[in-house]
Amino acid sequence: MRTLFAGLHQFHKEVYEKQRNLFEKLSSGQKPVALFIGCSDSRVVPDLIMMTNPGELFILRNAGNIVPPFGASTGGEAATIEFAVSALNVSDIIVCGHSQCGAIKALLNPASTEKLPMVRQWLLHAETTRRIMEENYPALSPADRYEVAIQEHVLVQLENLQTHPAVAVKLQRNQIALHGWIYQLETGQVHAFSPNTGVFEPLMGDKSMDSAALAQPVTSNVLNSATGSTPQNPPA
Amino acid sequence: MRTLFAGLHQFHKEVYEKQRNLFEKLSSGQKPVALFIGCSDSRVVPDLIMMTNPGELFILRNAGNIVPPFGASTGGEAATIEFAVSALNVSDIIVCGHSQCGAIKALLNPASTEKLPMVRQWLLHAETTRRIMEENYPALSPADRYEVAIQEHVLVQLENLQTHPAVAVKLQRNQIALHGWIYQLETGQVHAFSPNTGVFEPLMGDKSMDSAALAQPVTSNVLNSATGSTPQNPPA
Amino acid sequence: MRTLFAGLHQFHKEVYEKQRNLFEKLSSGQKPVALFIGCSDSRVVPDLIMMTNPGELFILRNAGNIVPPFGASTGGEAATIEFAVSALNVSDIIVCGHSQCGAIKALLNPASTEKLPMVRQWLLHAETTRRIMEENYPALSPADRYEVAIQEHVLVQLENLQTHPAVAVKLQRNQIALHGWIYQLETGQVHAFSPNTGVFEPLMGDKSMDSAALAQPVTSNVLNSATGSTPQNPPA
Amino acid sequence: MRTLFAGLHQFHKEVYEKQRNLFEKLSSGQKPVALFIGCSDSRVVPDLIMMTNPGELFILRNAGNIVPPFGASTGGEAATIEFAVSALNVSDIIVCGHSQCGAIKALLNPASTEKLPMVRQWLLHAETTRRIMEENYPALSPADRYEVAIQEHVLVQLENLQTHPAVAVKLQRNQIALHGWIYQLETGQVHAFSPNTGVFEPLMGDKSMDSAALAQPVTSNVLNSATGSTPQNPPA
Amino acid sequence: MRTLFAGLHQFHKEVYEKQRNLFEKLSSGQKPVALFIGCSDSRVVPDLIMMTNPGELFILRNAGNIVPPFGASTGGEAATIEFAVSALNVSDIIVCGHSQCGAIKALLNPASTEKLPMVRQWLLHAETTRRIMEENYPALSPADRYEVAIQEHVLVQLENLQTHPAVAVKLQRNQIALHGWIYQLETGQVHAFSPNTGVFEPLMGDKSMDSAALAQPVTSNVLNSATGSTPQNPPA
Amino acid sequence: MRTLFAGLHQFHKEVYEKQRNLFEKLSSGQKPVALFIGCSDSRVVPDLIMMTNPGELFILRNAGNIVPPFGASTGGEAATIEFAVSALNVSDIIVCGHSQCGAIKALLNPASTEKLPMVRQWLLHAETTRRIMEENYPALSPADRYEVAIQEHVLVQLENLQTHPAVAVKLQRNQIALHGWIYQLETGQVHAFSPNTGVFEPLMGDKSMDSAALAQPVTSNVLNSATGSTPQNPPA
Ligand SMILES: [Zn+2]
Ligand SMILES: [Zn+2]
Ligand SMILES: [Zn+2]
Ligand SMILES: [Zn+2]
Ligand SMILES: [Zn+2]
Ligand SMILES: [Zn+2]
Repeated sequence: MRTLFAGLHQFHKEVYEKQRNLFEKLSSGQKPVALFIGCSDSRVVPDLIMMTNPGELFILRNAGNIVPPFGASTGGEAATIEFAVSALNVSDIIVCGHSQCGAIKALLNPASTEKLPMVRQWLLHAETTRRIMEENYPALSPADRYEVAIQEHVLVQLENLQTHPAVAVKLQRNQIALHGWIYQLETGQVHAFSPNTGVFEPLMGDKSMDSAALAQPVTSNVLNSATGSTPQNPPA
Repeated sequence: MRTLFAGLHQFHKEVYEKQRNLFEKLSSGQKPVALFIGCSDSRVVPDLIMMTNPGELFILRNAGNIVPPFGASTGGEAATIEFAVSALNVSDIIVCGHSQCGAIKALLNPASTEKLPMVRQWLLHAETTRRIMEENYPALSPADRYEVAIQEHVLVQLENLQTHPAVAVKLQRNQIALHGWIYQLETGQVHAFSPNTGVFEPLMGDKSMDSAALAQPVTSNVLNSATGSTPQNPPA
Repeated sequence: MRTLFAGLHQFHKEVYEKQRNLFEKLSSGQKPVALFIGCSDSRVVPDLIMMTNPGELFILRNAGNIVPPFGASTGGEAATIEFAVSALNVSDIIVCGHSQCGAIKALLNPASTEKLPMVRQWLLHAETTRRIMEENYPALSPADRYEVAIQEHVLVQLENLQTHPAVAVKLQRNQIALHGWIYQLETGQVHAFSPNTGVFEPLMGDKSMDSAALAQPVTSNVLNSATGSTPQNPPA
Repeated sequence: MRTLFAGLHQFHKEVYEKQRNLFEKLSSGQKPVALFIGCSDSRVVPDLIMMTNPGELFILRNAGNIVPPFGASTGGEAATIEFAVSALNVSDIIVCGHSQCGAIKALLNPASTEKLPMVRQWLLHAETTRRIMEENYPALSPADRYEVAIQEHVLVQLENLQTHPAVAVKLQRNQIALHGWIYQLETGQVHAFSPNTGVFEPLMGDKSMDSAALAQPVTSNVLNSATGSTPQNPPA
Repeated sequence: MRTLFAGLHQFHKEVYEKQRNLFEKLSSGQKPVALFIGCSDSRVVPDLIMMTNPGELFILRNAGNIVPPFGASTGGEAATIEFAVSALNVSDIIVCGHSQCGAIKALLNPASTEKLPMVRQWLLHAETTRRIMEENYPALSPADRYEVAIQEHVLVQLENLQTHPAVAVKLQRNQIALHGWIYQLETGQVHAFSPNTGVFEPLMGDKSMDSAALAQPVTSNVLNSATGSTPQNPPA
Repeated sequence: MRTLFAGLHQFHKEVYEKQRNLFEKLSSGQKPVALFIGCSDSRVVPDLIMMTNPGELFILRNAGNIVPPFGASTGGEAATIEFAVSALNVSDIIVCGHSQCGAIKALLNPASTEKLPMVRQWLLHAETTRRIMEENYPALSPADRYEVAIQEHVLVQLENLQTHPAVAVKLQRNQIALHGWIYQLETGQVHAFSPNTGVFEPLMGDKSMDSAALAQPVTSNVLNSATGSTPQNPPA
């Protein structure tokens, strides 16, 4: 904790003083451009990854960047989404998974949560991801399985987002766009789901995706070729 | 969104490249020192305020930095706390409120959430804060009322935290410490609740609070003199 | 009730005797082709509308043909869907609304359910429909409002269906198709939502829709021109 | 699905045209005589079994014809019952089980639902049936056990029905009657529970039960001799 | 509290010493004969009213002696009932209301609970009682209304009790009997519901009710003449 | 039951007649001094242990004297607490465990509740107690384990009590005091938790604890030396 106290001091002396104007202006109100939904993982720092200033990203973080469908949870997720969309009028929602996610690892290895009953209960909201992996990707290697699960999981949360009234209403008016991202811890890169190609593609400054395209509904059932893996149909 | 894409690019080119060693090391696992529970507000950037590096803070963020008591919610809060405490063994939990918090404002003005049903439902988990303000501080000015509510709210969440088994077990062994903070948007300062004085005091680098003291249970019923306001007893 | 007893007798004497072979064969097991989700309304008789024989339609009926999102209800809806899809392997799911639906009428006139607390609570699962009408169609006449609400409601349930793991898994494998229908009490006609045109179109024997096309995900945010009405954007 | 489209066409051309008067009259409002609560099973077609016309039966169908007690579920069951009884004023409620019911089979064989988590959760509402079979009929053959369970299950649902305020209020005024039926897939016959004899008896046109008698409360604890089986008392 | 401490002392010195044998015997296990479900009201002392010794009555007390139907609550009621019936094998369950009950008063005067949100929520489990009074006894004087409500409420809880599997199973085997009582604070008398006469009758030592008769199911829809009041049928 | 009827008679003839004045006075309203939260166990008779008269103790009893945290249960506990504190203005709340408690025994031996599903579900609200025993007292003998669990359990409920708004508000104003007691079936003695010494001490008439001291918040994380046992820290 001593380090944290030192950091607070350094922040106040260096960062705050330099940007005093920004901070004072922000104290009269926030006007974020996007709602960022990410994992609680300490290695995923949204405002660092996007080099955003305070005031730009409204942020919801929980273990596993899970968005329970509307009505499925009494936790803070629905309220945070509603507040961002209906009260703050953000124009974009980003669901951002990440490589090496502990929550997805736990989801794929249920035995690992035997002593973590609340985690186990929370992961029931990710049952769709679990079942997609079990039924549609039965033959993947453990490494591929982990990687594909992280991708599918992001797409499932985008589906779930669309059941929230605040989101559904604005999607219909084309006033909000949904984005599915994955942050690669190892390389610092972000891949975004492209509804056109049906796969996650690197987001590059010089070749940036057209955000307009992302206004289309993102659906998880076209991922067939994600990461080069085709879902294997079990006999009907 | 274009700004965000540019930021991603800049991060990858500048930040990631400079700290490639750190990022590569982190990709093998996280070992955060603290669980930070803060508001989704875009102006509250935990890793900036504390000048922490990726990998240092495990972060739970929702609208209003609310911690429902154990069993009271099926959302991600309990699982995120359990994962941080029981799986990652963080040694400190910080509940950090902030000035100008929209959730607390909504809590004090219920009429403002008439069109925000999920926010309204979520704020039921902050009923204790609401009722403390209504019954114990009936005569404050609106500004003082707002400020005191933000403080009391942090202390109530610390109470709620102690009902979570993962936390209770380690508190008893003195293996975890709870901290109540408030970040002042206007000044960039952080005030921490001191169980010794019963008030929130500025955290200064040169006069930092003894974290050992914070290992004591933090209880909200000694706040009588917080911000110079004394709770007024209504006739019994 | 005397009429009902007479009907039972008539059924046994006339219908059962004529189709004894069918009934005896069915008693060894069912193999329905579709799950039909319709309203409890006495005027909507699925097996009559489609002229289906016993054994062809697995049927879920409740007030308002509502499909709560996955995890949002502890009622029979999720189990009935799971049983039809995962145990009986139906290849199609039809969500069928109908004109003059009392549940939709109640949804648009909340005051009418003041003495019907369970109906009121149940309609919270149709909040998305309610809010779409309130925000995206503020200027419709009552009659148009009723008609559009019935349509939007069907599309919202199709969205909700996709959050159920059993459905999501098979949608991804293209092993199930979702259909949005509306039965017109006045004319006996059925209109089906066409993802190609984005409107509900009459289902005609000679010009039947290509069911393959319906295997595409059906999304409610392209309905802009449904029934000739365009959602009016309120100022952002 | 092609068959279904053809059926729609045939219905519209043949059935609707012949009964145009009935359909047009119904479009101005429904006045059903009974609420029928039956299984989603495709082989149980209420309006066929009773030879009823559109407009006569308000129908609730879910897997297993389960009626959770009042307050025990947030699904559509309570609302559908309330709407039928309090808004439409039906005078009779029929709970109709059937032979070869897959839900009851699953209830008696819990291992069969290991991959059907929602079905398993739903069947918790049938725990009373399960436990009656386990404790009061420990020595039945599998076939008898299946048959008796279907009967006991109907009676338990009648008990549960009486906890719904809308039903309880009218039962006390003798304005509603409850009926427990079982439809035999193999023979096309319906057996109704007789509170006088305590067993299910065939409903025959020429020897029809007195519906007045059925206005008495139906209780499941007098079934001792149902199907010739006596519950075996384990030592107290 | 000083009085309470003195009482503890007196108990230990006088009562315990005199009955040391009983207390020591009880410390090896309890074998209560009945489960008593009563109100938390300080004036209702079960073991005093029945002059029972420690070890004779297993007691569940909450505000309003409410028994939510099976599955309707996650509170202690269902577990306490299950433990008494299935683990301790009590042979009788008494639901005991009382005159001047504050919970029933609150139920009949909803405005009085505006500042008591948890009481208000809890009373939703007594909705059947409330609605019976509203619909079936619209013309009673306030005093009669209060008295009849207390009676009807006891009968509704007996109905609810029968939905609990532990109870239903033993009722069917005639191994448990249910009793509906009302304790009159003013006179110290207990009235018990008689299924034979359909009214509450005084329980007298010399004219005691046959407990065997009470083994019959107690149903609330025969109360028509309770306290001389007949439910008034509103026009259907 | 015959004994119970005789007791009723004896009560009315002897007890009521002697204290007619008290009973008649009480019938106009109750003014209890304390809320007593105890186990349903038949051997724990609050009004006998404290030698209190009718009207002195408002009593909540359930299996295991469990107080779920605020919001964690829809049962009667929260309402009963709210009514006692906010409507009746009790000045003290006693949570009283007892030796030989069957609920604690079941908590420590989960296998014993396999056939008691509702008990098992209810004990989830005592998960903190269970986990404290598992993690912090791994090496106790079964007898010590049982004894310490009963103590820790009382302290956990005191923590949970403080999350209830009605309690939290008055604790802050020093208008209510919380007490943790354990009744020893074997000796008839009561031990009370002393926040000063951190252990349970016998409550003696001549050496009674200062109730003022008990107004301090009672926290379970200072119990380290309770009953001479020190929690063993597992390696972090
Ligand atoms: Zn993660
Ligand atoms: Zn905030
Ligand atoms: Zn309808
Ligand atoms: Zn069935
Ligand atoms: Zn009472
Ligand atoms: Zn006990």
